[in-house]
Amino acid sequence: MTLINLSYRTNYLHTYFKTTAVVPDTGKSEYKAVWLLHGYTGDDSAWIRHANIEEIARKHDWAIIMPEARNAFYSDSNFIPYYSFFINEYIPKIQSLLPISTDASDNYIAGSSMGGYGALKIAFKNPDKFSKVAGLSPIVDIEKFRNNPKSPMEKKTFDTIFDSPKKIADNQLVNIFNREHPQLKVLTICGDDDYMHEDNIMFKNFLGVHLKDSFTYMAVDGDHSWNTWVGNIDNVMNWFEK
Amino acid sequence: MTLINLSYRTNYLHTYFKTTAVVPDTGKSEYKAVWLLHGYTGDDSAWIRHANIEEIARKHDWAIIMPEARNAFYSDSNFIPYYSFFINEYIPKIQSLLPISTDASDNYIAGSSMGGYGALKIAFKNPDKFSKVAGLSPIVDIEKFRNNPKSPMEKKTFDTIFDSPKKIADNQLVNIFNREHPQLKVLTICGDDDYMHEDNIMFKNFLGVHLKDSFTYMAVDGDHSWNTWVGNIDNVMNWFEK
Amino acid sequence: MTLINLSYRTNYLHTYFKTTAVVPDTGKSEYKAVWLLHGYTGDDSAWIRHANIEEIARKHDWAIIMPEARNAFYSDSNFIPYYSFFINEYIPKIQSLLPISTDASDNYIAGSSMGGYGALKIAFKNPDKFSKVAGLSPIVDIEKFRNNPKSPMEKKTFDTIFDSPKKIADNQLVNIFNREHPQLKVLTICGDDDYMHEDNIMFKNFLGVHLKDSFTYMAVDGDHSWNTWVGNIDNVMNWFEK
Amino acid sequence: MTLINLSYRTNYLHTYFKTTAVVPDTGKSEYKAVWLLHGYTGDDSAWIRHANIEEIARKHDWAIIMPEARNAFYSDSNFIPYYSFFINEYIPKIQSLLPISTDASDNYIAGSSMGGYGALKIAFKNPDKFSKVAGLSPIVDIEKFRNNPKSPMEKKTFDTIFDSPKKIADNQLVNIFNREHPQLKVLTICGDDDYMHEDNIMFKNFLGVHLKDSFTYMAVDGDHSWNTWVGNIDNVMNWFEK
Repeated sequence: MTLINLSYRTNYLHTYFKTTAVVPDTGKSEYKAVWLLHGYTGDDSAWIRHANIEEIARKHDWAIIMPEARNAFYSDSNFIPYYSFFINEYIPKIQSLLPISTDASDNYIAGSSMGGYGALKIAFKNPDKFSKVAGLSPIVDIEKFRNNPKSPMEKKTFDTIFDSPKKIADNQLVNIFNREHPQLKVLTICGDDDYMHEDNIMFKNFLGVHLKDSFTYMAVDGDHSWNTWVGNIDNVMNWFEK
Repeated sequence: MTLINLSYRTNYLHTYFKTTAVVPDTGKSEYKAVWLLHGYTGDDSAWIRHANIEEIARKHDWAIIMPEARNAFYSDSNFIPYYSFFINEYIPKIQSLLPISTDASDNYIAGSSMGGYGALKIAFKNPDKFSKVAGLSPIVDIEKFRNNPKSPMEKKTFDTIFDSPKKIADNQLVNIFNREHPQLKVLTICGDDDYMHEDNIMFKNFLGVHLKDSFTYMAVDGDHSWNTWVGNIDNVMNWFEK
Repeated sequence: MTLINLSYRTNYLHTYFKTTAVVPDTGKSEYKAVWLLHGYTGDDSAWIRHANIEEIARKHDWAIIMPEARNAFYSDSNFIPYYSFFINEYIPKIQSLLPISTDASDNYIAGSSMGGYGALKIAFKNPDKFSKVAGLSPIVDIEKFRNNPKSPMEKKTFDTIFDSPKKIADNQLVNIFNREHPQLKVLTICGDDDYMHEDNIMFKNFLGVHLKDSFTYMAVDGDHSWNTWVGNIDNVMNWFEK
Repeated sequence: MTLINLSYRTNYLHTYFKTTAVVPDTGKSEYKAVWLLHGYTGDDSAWIRHANIEEIARKHDWAIIMPEARNAFYSDSNFIPYYSFFINEYIPKIQSLLPISTDASDNYIAGSSMGGYGALKIAFKNPDKFSKVAGLSPIVDIEKFRNNPKSPMEKKTFDTIFDSPKKIADNQLVNIFNREHPQLKVLTICGDDDYMHEDNIMFKNFLGVHLKDSFTYMAVDGDHSWNTWVGNIDNVMNWFEK
C-alpha cells in the first residue's frame, strides 16, 4: 500500500490544492478508483484520520482518492468555482498522475454529509465518469439544511455559495436528477437519529420511484457523526464491489 | 532546527487549518517569533518551498511561523472570518503550542504581496502584539489592486471579500493607519518593475510623513514575483534584527 | 485537537528524525503525555493510521507522542544508538517544544510488539521519567524472538543490533528488571493466538511475583496483529487513566 | 507543478519508505526523470528544503524523484539491504506509480556527498537504467572517507555497512567501474576547499582516461556543504539537458 500526499497549484482555485490517496501494491497498471469526499469542516486527511482507509483499499484492491473541499460545498461560487474545477481540472489531473482507470465502470464516488451531497451531485451530472455513487448521511435538501437550526454552517456562509433562490433550486439534488435523468447505481445511508433523517427518507422515496432497482437504501442506527460513517464505510465499499 | 507541520480544527473557520513552522535548537525556553505571511495563490508551504527559511531561523535564532491564508486577504468576510480568527484564535493557539515569546517586542510580522497587506494591517491594528512589520511588494491600495488589469485576482472573487465601498474603505491601509495611529517600526520594499510600484511610492510618502524615522523604505530591482521576495528576505530579516 | 508532524536533525542519529503528535485544545499550559511506540516495520505514522488516536487524546485530554523507531529495537547499536538518543536527546527535545508535563506521574509509555519491548525497557530503566507502562503483545524475550520461525525479522538483521550473547542478556527485560528493581505500574496484554503468547505468560508470572499489585495482565483474544492492538488500545488508555 | 510525498511499506527494508517528488503540469503522459540523492544525515526532504527543486523541474520539464537513504550509503548491509531494494523494488515501484519514462535515455541520476557516491555506483552498475550521472562532491573513495578525520561518520557506523576489507574493495567506485566498463555520460563536481578534493582529483584523472569525452569535470569554489551543492545544481541540470 502506498500513501500519497500531493499538492498542486490549480488554475481554477488560484491556490495549492491537497489530495490524500492510497494505491495498492498488487502490480496493476490501472486500479479501479473510489473518490471519497469529506464533509463540512473536514479536509483531505479527514477520512484517513477516522477510518482505516488503507485496509479498505487492500481488501478491494482499489485506489482511494480523497480531495480537500475547502467548505465550498462541491459547488461553483464566486469565491471558489469548485465544481467546475473538480470536473474540468481535478479529475483529469489525478488520472494523469496516478495509475487509475478512466472508465466510468471503474470509478465510484462516495462522501459523507456535505461530501454525500457532493458525490451525488457530481455523479448525477457525470454518469460518463462514475458508475456508482454512495451518500453517507448526505445533505439531500440544501435549502432545509440552510434553515435547520442544527446545521453547523452559518446562514451567511451558506449564502456566499448559494446566493440566490435560483442558485439553490439549480443545485437541489432532486432538480439535478430530474434534469439529467442519470442512469447509474445509487446508495444512500442515513442514521435514525440524524437531524436530516426526514429529508433522507423523502429523498429515498424519490429515488426509489425513479431509479427502481438501481437504488439501494440502508437504514442504520446512529446520528450525523463520524461514528455512523466509520461504522458503515465497509458496507458502502462492499456495495460498490457487488 | 525543527521543522513543524501542524493542523488543527478552528472554530472560527470551521475547518482544519495548517501551519508550517521552524524552531531553533539552541535550548531557549522562548524564542522570538517572525510571523511570515504568503500572498495570493500560496499556502503555508509557500515560503519554505521558495526561500531557505531554516537558514534564516538558524542565523537569527528565531522561530518562524507560516500560516495558510486560503486567499482570504487576511480579512473578515462572510465566507471566511480570517482576520478575527487570526487575532482571537490563531495567535494564542500557536503561542500555547510552541516555545515562543508573547511580548510585542519579540514578535515581528512580514509578508509578500497579499501577505504584505495582511502583515501591515495586522500590525497597524495590533501594536500590542507586534513591534516591527515588513511588507515585501505589499498590496497597499486594495481598490487599485482590484481594478488593476495586471491583478491575478478576479474582481468577482475580490468582491466576495470586500463586498461594499464602505468595506473597501475600512480596509484600506491608509485609513487603518489614520484610525489607529500605531507606533511601531515599519519597512516596505518594492521592485522598480512591480505593477504596483506607483502605489507603493505613494504609500512610502504617506508613511514617511507620519512615522518619520520609524519608517524605512528599500527600493529594489525586480518585478512582482518570488525572485524579488527571495532576493530580499535576508535584508528584511536583518532589518528586524537591528 | 492539533495534529503535529515534526522533524529535526538529531546529533545522536545523524539524520532527521520524525514524530507525529496530537495535543488537545483545552487550554492547559501542560498536558499529561503518552509516549506511544510502534513495532517492527512501522514508522511514526503507524498508530495514527490504524487507530483513532485523536479520539483517545480528546477523551483523556492527553498529548500523545509517536516517535519513529527505524527498526532499531529501541536499543543502542553501532548503526543506530537509539536508546541513548531517546533518553538523552529525544525526550528533552519534545518536552522543550510541546506543552507537556515533565513529571513522571504525568508520563506514561506504551507500545506494541517491538514497541512493547521498547516501552517496557525504557520504563524499567527510567522510573524517574514514567510512572506507568503498557506493553501490547510485547516482545518479552528477545532471544526467543530471534529464533522464533514466525518472527518477521531476519536473524542477520537482529544480530546487527544485539551482536553478542552478552548484549542479548543485557537487553533481556527480565534481566533489566532484576538489575533496576523499578517501582512503577505495569500492564501487559497478549492475544491467545499470538506466536509469543507463551513468552508473555512466563513474563506475566515473573512480573506478578515481583510487582504484585502494581502489575496487571489482560488476557485477550487475537493474534500478533494490528487487529489486536487497535481492539485493545482503549483498554490500555483507560488503565493509564485509573 | 505537483509536489508529492509518498510512503510505502517495502518488503526489502521491512518499513515504510518515504519519497518526495515533483511532477510538471505540462500534460505529458511520461516525463523524463531525475533521481536526486541526498547525503549522509539527510532525508527525502533534504534537497527540496535547500534548493528550489520545483523551479528546476519547471525549467527542464522533468520529474524529480528524491528518495530517503537512511544513512545506508546506498549499499547492501545486514541491517539495510538498500542497494538491492533500490534496484529491484524501488525504481519499478516509482515507475508504476508516477508518469515517468522507463527508458535509460530519459533517466538521469545525481547526488551530493554520500548521494554522489550512490548515484555513481547505481549508474555504473545499471547503464541500462540511466544514461547520465552526476556527482556533486561525491565520496569517491570510501576507504579514505572512513579514515578521514573530517568525516562526519563514525568508523563503527561505517563498519556496520562495509564490514570487511573485501566489502570495501567491492564497493569502491574505481573497482566497480573496472568490473562493469559502463558506457554513459558522467559529470563530477568538487569544491576547491572540499576535504575530499584530492580524492576527487584522482577520480577525475581516472575517469578522464577511461571515459574520455563522456566524462566532464567541473572545478568549483567552495567546501563540502549545501552552499556548494545549491550553488551548482543548476549547472548539473543544464549538463543533463545537453
